[in-house]
Amino acid sequence: MDISKKVNIEIQRFKDEYHFTERELPESIELSKYIDHTLLKPEATPMMVKQLCEEAVQHSFYSVCVNSAFLPLANEILQNTDVKKAVVIGFPLGAVSTDVKVFETNWCLEKGAEEFDMVINVGNLKAALYNEVYDDIKAVVDASKGKIVKVIIETALLTDEEKVAACVIAKEAGAHFVKTSTGFSKSGATVEDVSLMKFVVGNEMKVKASGGVRSKEIALAMIKAGADRIGTSSGIKIVNE
Amino acid sequence: MDISKKVNIEIQRFKDEYHFTERELPESIELSKYIDHTLLKPEATPMMVKQLCEEAVQHSFYSVCVNSAFLPLANEILQNTDVKKAVVIGFPLGAVSTDVKVFETNWCLEKGAEEFDMVINVGNLKAALYNEVYDDIKAVVDASKGKIVKVIIETALLTDEEKVAACVIAKEAGAHFVKTSTGFSKSGATVEDVSLMKFVVGNEMKVKASGGVRSKEIALAMIKAGADRIGTSSGIKIVNE
Repeated sequence: MDISKKVNIEIQRFKDEYHFTERELPESIELSKYIDHTLLKPEATPMMVKQLCEEAVQHSFYSVCVNSAFLPLANEILQNTDVKKAVVIGFPLGAVSTDVKVFETNWCLEKGAEEFDMVINVGNLKAALYNEVYDDIKAVVDASKGKIVKVIIETALLTDEEKVAACVIAKEAGAHFVKTSTGFSKSGATVEDVSLMKFVVGNEMKVKASGGVRSKEIALAMIKAGADRIGTSSGIKIVNE
Repeated sequence: MDISKKVNIEIQRFKDEYHFTERELPESIELSKYIDHTLLKPEATPMMVKQLCEEAVQHSFYSVCVNSAFLPLANEILQNTDVKKAVVIGFPLGAVSTDVKVFETNWCLEKGAEEFDMVINVGNLKAALYNEVYDDIKAVVDASKGKIVKVIIETALLTDEEKVAACVIAKEAGAHFVKTSTGFSKSGATVEDVSLMKFVVGNEMKVKASGGVRSKEIALAMIKAGADRIGTSSGIKIVNE
């Protein structure tokens, strides 16, 4: 079945069946294990990246998420720890060519990256060029050689139907997560978007909420709405609240 | 002489000698030839890129400036026209690894790019890792094989001393322009920053003002302050005013 057909079927299912749902939180929740401790702003110095990594170890965060230029440093600091190294690919605009995304993925894989948070080509999605969007994601999934790929759909720029389409395509391309936001667009994660994304991807994929998750209350709301991972620079505040 | 020494000498010269200056506009100014007609937002569709290119031809703009994913399309549309094809590299955060910037430059060169607007590693600049900043720029200059390289310093994130340092390093690395802004940070070009940058790079390099240049009045003020190129998505408005 071609991808447009799958997208259209899922949009129809969304219109017919979707309603906002929340799941119950587990009785004891280890919030730190949900957190990708994130530092992506351009003015981040190596010293700040070092501190990020040390904090991640200290608070047992799931991972750190950094730009590729600082991956070698993070990799060095996190040797022999349980903290995963996540990087961003084609970030934050998603509008570099697929070849560039693939090269970036290869490079980061070689430098120790374990998770790849890639941005879709939003313009192609908006133009309903679903095969192009699929090929772009699939190329990164293939390059990552079985490592975790999270597909950032940048919900702030999309209609609900486009969000559904992006999730269907990410699933078809074999990615492991859909992720709401880069944190560099007009707005970040909402519980409504997390719930929508979870509805589309079901239990075969996970959802990462990112952008504006700055308190324990918001983090828990995201998890109830369907998030399995939280991308935030406020992780310490969240686990200490 | 090492780069730190050159930076420090120039910062001293800046403190001793700099004052805001304006140059006179030429009697007749062909404003369209100053304009890089720019479309970098992530939601830009292929149709919008096509329109950008057609507008650039129609209004005789100097170039179009696009993300790499849309360079092949721009290149196709602009065949046999005078409009140059400019792309952005490591954009807009500047925090991808140098290898990624070089790959992106190679890829774009092969696909017809004639000008490369690269973003510096702002974090390394802020950490006074001047050799790292130099190597990053130099690698892109080398990869571009004599084509025009514009170095985006993202003035909104820098102190005046850091702006001076960035300009000195870009000049040493053999780039052709320093450029104020990505248009994706807190703020864009100011006449004060353009004047400062022109003071540092002198007549051996040019200055591009970008970010927030949305009227003829602002464009002319930037040119008076020292800009030789304007990056804007408001080019049509500017030339029609």
